[in-house]
Amino acid sequence: MPRTRTVEIGRAECVRLLQYESFLGRVAFAIDGVVELRPVNYLADERGLVFCTTSGTVLGAVSSATPVVFEVDASQPMDHSGWSVIVRGTAKEITDPQELEYLRRGPLKSWAVSPGERWVRVSIEEISGVRIPVD
Amino acid sequence: MPRTRTVEIGRAECVRLLQYESFLGRVAFAIDGVVELRPVNYLADERGLVFCTTSGTVLGAVSSATPVVFEVDASQPMDHSGWSVIVRGTAKEITDPQELEYLRRGPLKSWAVSPGERWVRVSIEEISGVRIPVD
Repeated sequence: MPRTRTVEIGRAECVRLLQYESFLGRVAFAIDGVVELRPVNYLADERGLVFCTTSGTVLGAVSSATPVVFEVDASQPMDHSGWSVIVRGTAKEITDPQELEYLRRGPLKSWAVSPGERWVRVSIEEISGVRIPVD
Repeated sequence: MPRTRTVEIGRAECVRLLQYESFLGRVAFAIDGVVELRPVNYLADERGLVFCTTSGTVLGAVSSATPVVFEVDASQPMDHSGWSVIVRGTAKEITDPQELEYLRRGPLKSWAVSPGERWVRVSIEEISGVRIPVD
């Protein structure tokens, strides 16, 4: 079975995949040199993405505007194809009451909810992606 | 719709999920303070996992035995359920010829292959997981 190399995905298609083709991403960041990695549900537009968290470690990173890396992917095991998009940006907690009200009425819900939920926005500073075409 | 909190997954079940319920994980690590995050196909047993890479950044981290975080997850959007398992360990390139021969004959293939493929083992130093039960 021939196998192919990865193909780079252009920026517009990366943004489309981020916006419309996934709902679960993974956010990575470092706190005092220790790397943290965790899955989050998210919503994205052209400029950035938002997710909802109650995690102390995520909020600790966010409050100091730590750079984050955010990844989404999809894969089809039957034909060994897939894609992955990676965003680099800076995470900031959303505190504007109007924006929070808008987000809370929206479609994004953290699947596991506790009373301490907080909203985080990640700007898209860099976005890139690769695709593994069907064999 | 009531939504639930996450439930911690015990170690044995975390290892089972890692071994049998996923084939695609994401590896995060820091190089000179910059966090890297990328998806990899992998195979796991009770002690660790192996993946195949051609990435210069991954190999750069591996050669200095940088700690890594490895994440696998699954989600069912219909009922907002899912799970995630996170492994902390140290990555090392596999150089033993017999082990490489065994791995190259095995079921794990990097989906995108280039002539420079190298194999990496990550020991399981910590493993933990959370599940979001069906609503």
